[in-house]
Amino acid sequence: MLRVLKFGGTSVGTLERIENVANIVKKMRDNGDDLVVVVSAMSGETNKLIDYAKHYSQTPNERELDMLLSSGERVTSALLSIALNELGYKAISMSGREAGIYTTSEYTYARIEKIETANMEKSIKNGEIIIVAGFQGVSSDDNRVTTLGRGGSDLTAVALAGALNADICEIYTDVDGIYTTDPRIEPKAKKLEKISYDEMLELASLGAKVLQNRSVEMAKKLNVNLVSRSSFTPDVEGTLITKEENIMEAPIVSGIALDKNQVRVGMYGVMDKPGIASAIFTALADANINVDMIVQTVGVDGKTALDFTVPVGDLIKTKNAMVAFQKDVQNIDYNEAIAKVSIVGVGMKSHTGVASKAFQAMANENINIRIISTSEIKISMIIDEKYSELAVRALHEAYELDK
Amino acid sequence: MLRVLKFGGTSVGTLERIENVANIVKKMRDNGDDLVVVVSAMSGETNKLIDYAKHYSQTPNERELDMLLSSGERVTSALLSIALNELGYKAISMSGREAGIYTTSEYTYARIEKIETANMEKSIKNGEIIIVAGFQGVSSDDNRVTTLGRGGSDLTAVALAGALNADICEIYTDVDGIYTTDPRIEPKAKKLEKISYDEMLELASLGAKVLQNRSVEMAKKLNVNLVSRSSFTPDVEGTLITKEENIMEAPIVSGIALDKNQVRVGMYGVMDKPGIASAIFTALADANINVDMIVQTVGVDGKTALDFTVPVGDLIKTKNAMVAFQKDVQNIDYNEAIAKVSIVGVGMKSHTGVASKAFQAMANENINIRIISTSEIKISMIIDEKYSELAVRALHEAYELDK
Repeated sequence: MLRVLKFGGTSVGTLERIENVANIVKKMRDNGDDLVVVVSAMSGETNKLIDYAKHYSQTPNERELDMLLSSGERVTSALLSIALNELGYKAISMSGREAGIYTTSEYTYARIEKIETANMEKSIKNGEIIIVAGFQGVSSDDNRVTTLGRGGSDLTAVALAGALNADICEIYTDVDGIYTTDPRIEPKAKKLEKISYDEMLELASLGAKVLQNRSVEMAKKLNVNLVSRSSFTPDVEGTLITKEENIMEAPIVSGIALDKNQVRVGMYGVMDKPGIASAIFTALADANINVDMIVQTVGVDGKTALDFTVPVGDLIKTKNAMVAFQKDVQNIDYNEAIAKVSIVGVGMKSHTGVASKAFQAMANENINIRIISTSEIKISMIIDEKYSELAVRALHEAYELDK
Repeated sequence: MLRVLKFGGTSVGTLERIENVANIVKKMRDNGDDLVVVVSAMSGETNKLIDYAKHYSQTPNERELDMLLSSGERVTSALLSIALNELGYKAISMSGREAGIYTTSEYTYARIEKIETANMEKSIKNGEIIIVAGFQGVSSDDNRVTTLGRGGSDLTAVALAGALNADICEIYTDVDGIYTTDPRIEPKAKKLEKISYDEMLELASLGAKVLQNRSVEMAKKLNVNLVSRSSFTPDVEGTLITKEENIMEAPIVSGIALDKNQVRVGMYGVMDKPGIASAIFTALADANINVDMIVQTVGVDGKTALDFTVPVGDLIKTKNAMVAFQKDVQNIDYNEAIAKVSIVGVGMKSHTGVASKAFQAMANENINIRIISTSEIKISMIIDEKYSELAVRALHEAYELDK
């Protein structure tokens, strides 16, 4: 069995923790598995290097920044390899280049183009445990080191698992899997055994600390069985993220996600002329703003209302983009005191009454729903932020997720 | 004019010092020179990484250790490149691999085999300032990163200067050149303007902090004009180390060196049988002990005395090697309280009376000379350690080196 394991910054945050990782790897190796281990930089290292660069420039040359940032993962890979060699195992560290990871030349956020597995396959055949420096590759055009941006080490692991046809790709963090909801909000939250790629993508906020959507999307595309588990409790099974067909009896609802990082933009008294909504959303798209939920209310006096949400981080960009439309609108208001609560589950597709149960649960708690949007496997509601936790707990109970 | 510049760990020891280096480079660039800049790891970085490795193993896997250690220089090269780009200069960092430095596979002490200059030449033609991560290359056999051992960054600079046919190779440290003797012993010591490779090699102890013999030897072999100067006083000219022919009127004596790191081994009552001396020195050579001065005194009663010096660091190895000869010798004693004083100068070749002046100077101060050895350009004397400084000052004055 070929496993790709990935250990994040916290899991390799100290010399002792790297030793702990060596012991996890050793145990798996003793079970006879072939192993490719992807490591991040020790926690804090990458930020330290960015601070160094910022000493010289607020906008450091990105090609050079990649040379700088790639060094953190190289250090971890060498240290883990040294630890494993000392334990008597043949381990070999590999940079992104040595692992055959070719990318675009978009420094600091390069995309993986192809993976040449020959070097890794030779090492696996030699009985070596491969320790890959995550987060990095080499540009096909310039033959320069590149980095893959946020979540880059996860992406490295998933891409290698796909290219090597690995049986499994395990992402180790300090969290032991994906829960039905945030346990800090609902202590009765339960860890999921399995979840589909699509559910995981919709539950991003639950797994945000654990898995980047970019990696889940790639796992889905490459059909990689992804496991989220903890390096601090390696004996505890994690959550398997896999394709829907692999999940026999999918629950109707898998989890409840909460997202407080949205702003509701209300545009009232919008001139009801053709193309105005289109113009607004085109302007937002051009400014690279990720609009989430949209509701348009047709008015009676030739005016309409538009409601939509954008990420808090895009608020200033949004306000700038809206300046051009002030003449077409009576009033624009921005409300940050909202939250998005989502119910996610592939079982929804084949069950009715899922949404009404959610609305009933909200009504029971006297929580007003401001905006609703639904997809095949998700129901999202915008509510006042102060009711966030209450709503999550009510929904968790309504769908009996603690059972 | 093509210059290769090399900045050591102290010169790039802090973010501010790297900025200082960027300004030195900028100034030279503004003069119109093409530049290849070799950098070491920030001071302390390499030791920190070695400590990390030692956490796992007293004898870390050397291939993996090289992956680890090579990262320090990569960081410095990227930072200097970022600083220069911010100043508006086109700079590009290069790893040993990118600079085309191919080495043997002797990890942690690899030797440079060849340098493929195509990549560097292309960058120079593009008007780019190249910042090379020193101390490292890539093994011709395994295509793995290697490191070059002690003084490796100097070696990188000299080798690149040779391969690129550079006009000059400047080694920047915190010392502004080579002095006639250690200024801490003789405040009247003067900085040398020029010195030949051979003199520099013999004066190793004077330049030990500044230049490794390995680099000087390579500079001699590749006919590279080497300059030792300081990054803290960049406007002060340093010392040029060049071939003898380039030094018009060489002084008879260039400098006085002092070496306190020798032990005198005295073997008394050695059986005067054929091959005994040969057996002793073969044993020492087999143990990789660098024997320096040797004197054999023929005895009267069929026994002889052997006196030689070895580095203090090899004392234990020496004692072990001598065990085999205890039966052939009446007594062996080890004296660490000695020092070697050397007078060096290419002018000696064509002048007589140089040695007698030294002996006279010692006699005037009542300093006993225990062993003497001479070469074409050097006279060395072993004296009691307590007279070291007195001897250096007396010789410095006798040869009028302060004039």
